[in-house]
Amino acid sequence: SPCAACKLLRRRCAQDCIFAPYFPPDEPQKFAFVHKVFGASNVSKMLQDLPLHQRGDAVGSMVYEANARVRDPVYGCVGAISALHQQIAQLQTQLAISQAENVCLRMQHS
Amino acid sequence: SPCAACKLLRRRCAQDCIFAPYFPPDEPQKFAFVHKVFGASNVSKMLQDLPLHQRGDAVGSMVYEANARVRDPVYGCVGAISALHQQIAQLQTQLAISQAENVCLRMQHS
Repeated sequence: SPCAACKLLRRRCAQDCIFAPYFPPDEPQKFAFVHKVFGASNVSKMLQDLPLHQRGDAVGSMVYEANARVRDPVYGCVGAISALHQQIAQLQTQLAISQAENVCLRMQHS
Repeated sequence: SPCAACKLLRRRCAQDCIFAPYFPPDEPQKFAFVHKVFGASNVSKMLQDLPLHQRGDAVGSMVYEANARVRDPVYGCVGAISALHQQIAQLQTQLAISQAENVCLRMQHS
């Protein structure tokens, strides 16, 4: 049976199909989102430019980005990056306060 | 003079060109990367699906993602997300240690 990509693109799934190893027929949504966001021909080109052992990771990161873009068409996964930067700033503030308290406590102690 | 998108796509830049407000002719690289990663027709579709006041932010996040994908074809901006998650885990550990020290110092003090 054809892979999820060839099924959506309505083409024959060749023996050496570049999509088949990463887009099994039982997960049609995975390719649908990647195709909607990046376009099948861009995905194919990006995979062809990578050595075989890195293609799985590349597909994983493209699927992640595509899902994020479908969920949030304005910010995509850049929204997540902003949120993480904010969380880091908060943690750095909390850490600075806690370390300052520590210094005060040590001074009281000595 | 045509916008950076119409120049790259070698087409006439119409008065109501959807790209023109966001891709000025003096920043050709901005559109080149977005086109390479998402494809001009996908970018056009994504912009058309958004209200005018959100299109600038959408272009900004797509340019960010495209740059990240060109720099790192395997992980794109998902690489940045992983790095930020690691930084958060480190900060949380440091904060927990500092707060535990705090508790110890208070106990010694009382």
